[in-house]
Amino acid sequence: MKAINSLDHLIESLRCLPGVGPKSAQRIAYYLLQRDRDGAAALAAALMQSLETLRHCQRCNTLTEADICERCLSPQRDASLLCVVESPVDMNMMEQTLAYSGLYYVLMGRLSPLDGVGPRELSLERVLARASDGVVKELILATNFTNEGEATAHYLSEGARARGLSVTRIARGVPVGGELEYVDPGTLAQAVRERRSLA
Amino acid sequence: MKAINSLDHLIESLRCLPGVGPKSAQRIAYYLLQRDRDGAAALAAALMQSLETLRHCQRCNTLTEADICERCLSPQRDASLLCVVESPVDMNMMEQTLAYSGLYYVLMGRLSPLDGVGPRELSLERVLARASDGVVKELILATNFTNEGEATAHYLSEGARARGLSVTRIARGVPVGGELEYVDPGTLAQAVRERRSLA
Repeated sequence: MKAINSLDHLIESLRCLPGVGPKSAQRIAYYLLQRDRDGAAALAAALMQSLETLRHCQRCNTLTEADICERCLSPQRDASLLCVVESPVDMNMMEQTLAYSGLYYVLMGRLSPLDGVGPRELSLERVLARASDGVVKELILATNFTNEGEATAHYLSEGARARGLSVTRIARGVPVGGELEYVDPGTLAQAVRERRSLA
Repeated sequence: MKAINSLDHLIESLRCLPGVGPKSAQRIAYYLLQRDRDGAAALAAALMQSLETLRHCQRCNTLTEADICERCLSPQRDASLLCVVESPVDMNMMEQTLAYSGLYYVLMGRLSPLDGVGPRELSLERVLARASDGVVKELILATNFTNEGEATAHYLSEGARARGLSVTRIARGVPVGGELEYVDPGTLAQAVRERRSLA
């Protein structure tokens, strides 16, 4: 009599979404079934299609439908620059700046020993091997300025230096439009320490 | 060349989830594809199964796999009580109290003229018709104590009274464990106005 029905099953399944607990899962399930059945059907189809077609680019590790993604194959990109980011979202942000025309390597994560993510799990050797292909002239580290992101950048910079690669880190400092009054002391300290001489 | 790929399609589809904007959609998509492919596959399957099997109970309007839900068919429920709630979540909350053994009517919404939800869209006549079956002795209004919930309760109480039905509203007041110091004045005012004589 109390067999799990499809509604309970849906609610349970929605909990795979990040940040969705039992209450939100219930709310989302009822919302979809009541208000947006077309959206729910489209979501189910998109999920299945993505799982089927998307894999990692063999060169930059981002998600793509081909063996090697469009960006890695593009002759318009500067192959002498390789920018390391944590996730495809970060890569998209970099692209939106229009300030970078090199290639990328997407880690799909960051060093996080507490979660069991070490250099091996992130395949950091693969990044260094990729950067040592003879074409890459500069390895740009654009991981986040969090503890984990900094640790990842540190590990990569050590490895890159050991291989004689030129390695840089994107700049820290006061954000554009930022007022010193409202910037945290740590950021301001970095901005002073890393001040640039004006030409 | 710039055909929409399955990743973009997934990100777009995720926006059908309530409260998910472009940024979260991206984050969720990458999370699922990177960390929880099994969960994503299960979610897709659960969505499709739910859309296929779930419909509204012909008596109480909640979502069910049968024509009439288990609860409406149960001989253990007191058919002389009909409790009107806004959503299945609210019904579940009522059930958890173990304080109610009657039947339900689930509105699947509330009056909200600004969103184009009037008495007709909510089929409030159907509620009143259901409550006039001759078996129901008391219509208990358990819509939320929000403006919309109150308006819905008001509309139903007027209709019920016009049909000579006995109608009640669940009590407002200080929550159990609540301290007067921290209760908002509106709630406290209601608790005073609706004070009960102790037997």
